[in-house]
Amino acid sequence: MSIESRLKALGFSLPPAPQPLGRYAAVAEAHGLLFISGQLPLRDGKMAFSGRVGEELSVTQGRQAAELAALNVLAQIHRHLGGFDRLEKILRVEGAVASADGFFNQPAVLDGASELFAEVLADKAGHARSASSERQLPANAAVALVVTASVRPH
Amino acid sequence: MSIESRLKALGFSLPPAPQPLGRYAAVAEAHGLLFISGQLPLRDGKMAFSGRVGEELSVTQGRQAAELAALNVLAQIHRHLGGFDRLEKILRVEGAVASADGFFNQPAVLDGASELFAEVLADKAGHARSASSERQLPANAAVALVVTASVRPH
Amino acid sequence: MSIESRLKALGFSLPPAPQPLGRYAAVAEAHGLLFISGQLPLRDGKMAFSGRVGEELSVTQGRQAAELAALNVLAQIHRHLGGFDRLEKILRVEGAVASADGFFNQPAVLDGASELFAEVLADKAGHARSASSERQLPANAAVALVVTASVRPH
Repeated sequence: MSIESRLKALGFSLPPAPQPLGRYAAVAEAHGLLFISGQLPLRDGKMAFSGRVGEELSVTQGRQAAELAALNVLAQIHRHLGGFDRLEKILRVEGAVASADGFFNQPAVLDGASELFAEVLADKAGHARSASSERQLPANAAVALVVTASVRPH
Repeated sequence: MSIESRLKALGFSLPPAPQPLGRYAAVAEAHGLLFISGQLPLRDGKMAFSGRVGEELSVTQGRQAAELAALNVLAQIHRHLGGFDRLEKILRVEGAVASADGFFNQPAVLDGASELFAEVLADKAGHARSASSERQLPANAAVALVVTASVRPH
Repeated sequence: MSIESRLKALGFSLPPAPQPLGRYAAVAEAHGLLFISGQLPLRDGKMAFSGRVGEELSVTQGRQAAELAALNVLAQIHRHLGGFDRLEKILRVEGAVASADGFFNQPAVLDGASELFAEVLADKAGHARSASSERQLPANAAVALVVTASVRPH
């Protein structure tokens, strides 16, 4: 089953890839690596999840924010590569979670992204991960994901 | 026009590359990638921009801090490579901005770095970027930049 | 002298590699690079150093936390590679330090990790580094390290 079919079977569709928020590129590629700019839980150009997990947002909402940001990551990869054929693997996910003081379970929130990758990308999903807890994120996002992937060189 | 000439035409000169603040190397290279240690808005060994954007510092000052840190990034690349010939491209910029509570426009601040790269490096400038908002940064810096570049292997 | 012998001579032994805290892999490898998931100062599955440097913890304790997290990094590399033979070099260390307001000496804390690498890995230790100051880290850790290494391809 293709990645696109698995997305569809799970009830998702690939959103349009969000525009950069400044003078940079959405994706940069070199030496078999793909560096994807930080992705936020944007839907149709609007922030769908704002504020802190453990304060304005529940862990479940935080997980949904991470899932939405992960969909945007997939959209960037798809747009840059013109599909998923050249994608070898998600290598690294750095996840930042806007968090209430004393909320320490950022990994549970970020599993919203990692589980989407696992279900949709199957053997291309296995990534290293790091988590950080932030008081606030750019554009008041609840979650930000920075992803590095490996690709078959041209 | 060379990178050095473009720098000069814009009224900049390459500063001496700042020393590491601990037991690490300013730059590490492998497999066509250059990892540059975090660069701060240091000038002549002194922190030129301290404190938080939206509090002690305006957005304009934050942009100047990002520009100065970006000059230090260029100085590290130049020192490591002995020039800019082997530089292929800036791949990734991670930018941290010391920010007042409720200040969410870190991307505008980091454009101070991305615009310098665009003007000076031209077709070698196109990078992915991620932004974070911090309450404080090491050495009380206003901005910190972590840059990964691609280089022609030896 | 082997890396294992140097560890022993310094009074250290390689701990078992900590399990991931969610649905991700401890290590991902591609194109000569090793991406190691964020490592915390865990000992025997328990957080050995919690809270903020400059508040609950002294700089010396912070350095010990960084050293312990660095041992866990070495354990992950050893488990993934089945030894240290294929390891070329530690390329990059990103260190986050849970910090009291107004504590700006994160580099001194992170030297606890960089010095361990220097003593144990010798010519394989030379890395670029970046530091961040955080109000809190996942699982209330005092320090988190994210390491990228270069390896001889299979």
